[in-house]
Amino acid sequence: MAKTYIFGHKNPDTDAISSAIIMADFEQQTGNTEATPYRLGDVNAETQYALDHFKVDAPELLNDNLADQEVILVDHNEFQQSADSIADAQVKHVVDHHRIANFETAAPLYYRAEPVGCTATILYKMYQERGFEIKPHIAGLMVSAIISDSLLFKSPTCTEEDVNAAEALKAIADVDLESYGLEMLKAGASTSDKSATDLLTADAKSFNMGDYTTRIAQVNTVDIDEVFERQDELEKAMLEASANEKYDLFVLVITDIINSDSKILVVGAEKDQVGVAFDVKLENGTAFLPGVVSRKKQVVPQITETLTK
Amino acid sequence: MAKTYIFGHKNPDTDAISSAIIMADFEQQTGNTEATPYRLGDVNAETQYALDHFKVDAPELLNDNLADQEVILVDHNEFQQSADSIADAQVKHVVDHHRIANFETAAPLYYRAEPVGCTATILYKMYQERGFEIKPHIAGLMVSAIISDSLLFKSPTCTEEDVNAAEALKAIADVDLESYGLEMLKAGASTSDKSATDLLTADAKSFNMGDYTTRIAQVNTVDIDEVFERQDELEKAMLEASANEKYDLFVLVITDIINSDSKILVVGAEKDQVGVAFDVKLENGTAFLPGVVSRKKQVVPQITETLTK
Repeated sequence: MAKTYIFGHKNPDTDAISSAIIMADFEQQTGNTEATPYRLGDVNAETQYALDHFKVDAPELLNDNLADQEVILVDHNEFQQSADSIADAQVKHVVDHHRIANFETAAPLYYRAEPVGCTATILYKMYQERGFEIKPHIAGLMVSAIISDSLLFKSPTCTEEDVNAAEALKAIADVDLESYGLEMLKAGASTSDKSATDLLTADAKSFNMGDYTTRIAQVNTVDIDEVFERQDELEKAMLEASANEKYDLFVLVITDIINSDSKILVVGAEKDQVGVAFDVKLENGTAFLPGVVSRKKQVVPQITETLTK
Repeated sequence: MAKTYIFGHKNPDTDAISSAIIMADFEQQTGNTEATPYRLGDVNAETQYALDHFKVDAPELLNDNLADQEVILVDHNEFQQSADSIADAQVKHVVDHHRIANFETAAPLYYRAEPVGCTATILYKMYQERGFEIKPHIAGLMVSAIISDSLLFKSPTCTEEDVNAAEALKAIADVDLESYGLEMLKAGASTSDKSATDLLTADAKSFNMGDYTTRIAQVNTVDIDEVFERQDELEKAMLEASANEKYDLFVLVITDIINSDSKILVVGAEKDQVGVAFDVKLENGTAFLPGVVSRKKQVVPQITETLTK
């Protein structure tokens, strides 16, 4: 039996790492003994906390060329977010909760996408449908991924199905959702030990918006002020990146995971448009956005609409 | 509630029409009262036989512009096989059994693909998973689509799941699979009342194979000789189409649905390559291919391999 490579997106977060491990376990239960999880980048501090708590090893870093290899993608489908040799692989199965774009196969495949808050929620449903056993560490990784993607159920991307899955899994995982979740999020929210470049690249995506290219990075923290002590350093790094990569706008979203608010820092010629998008006046390039926690639902569409008017 | 447009591919076959009707019924059972089936082309004789047998009206022909409309695609995903305004629609759900290509969305969606022989087989599983009622006419359309796509379970694209679905559905639909299936296939296999152009266009697809463009049309019949009485007329129409559309090769596959064999007719500068592909010598542009019934699995890969060597 040929090996099946299973992995989530580059710059992996807790859902990308956990879903690869969970999907490999699922495949093993179907009889695919060669199903093996991989990762496409470093394990971040939040994910490491979850792996340590449930005593699970991180997947190996993927270094193999995937030409003609069997592959299962979790938590992504767009080729630019995937392994470099993905276009030459045989994609057998995708489980994901994102839009579909820049993805194609030569042959029919299994594809399961649902517009829920977390890939692990879909995997949970797949276990239920097949009547597969959910072992405690698998339940723990599912819960961790759901808490991570939903910021403890506070993100507008969170659905009833995500909440129900976490509620059903907490007993198997033997955790209190609130206390475990907060500790895990805090473990990933330490910003003092990171360079300005680390903060700007760890979770950053580029978007084409009309005639403009906008870079939007997001940082989770328990102390917004601590991040803004380094405003000058961050602005300088954002301007450098904009000059090198031709961004028209660079928006850094610093999200308070305790209170579920964000403060943004913006550089670029079009920065006043960001004020228009949120109906606020930027002060010294910054604005406080109460209740904003989701880049996907509360930041990208608003700036896109203003820039494409 | 906004209308949901549900439709299969252009040049609709029995699976494309039936799956649109079935998916609309499924959506109605979820509470989506505005789910409405449509078709993207004429109903063929085989499909009409199935609709008449189960006393179901054909869906309306789609004429509306789909910009910003809610859409569900069945039995296809590639935009060039879909409605002309599909790129501006909001695709909410796809149920399909083909490769994924030339498809993208702006937002997350439901996508359910499985590598089985027929879309209706996947829909059957979705009814089972949700515990939804399968009414007799819905079961009849499911059975019809499965028999059509699998040529009465003889195609190599047919899987155990397709067979099991049809076996489970036959009692609800109140049909004998063998006798009903043969009558339905025969109803679509009448070739004497069709022009050469009809035969060459009803089920034809173009394929890029290395430096060559190959057109492959397929015709189902119960009498291969009857079709070959018009060989001169067919060759002339194939040469004309090749000149107009710049095909390097035009292959007509005439499939005997009773005995599960095919005879091919080939025109074009590269026609000897088709002989190489099947390890036969073409006589007068023709060759008999015992056991060949599936363009997808038994014709396209073989010619592709020869032309890309």
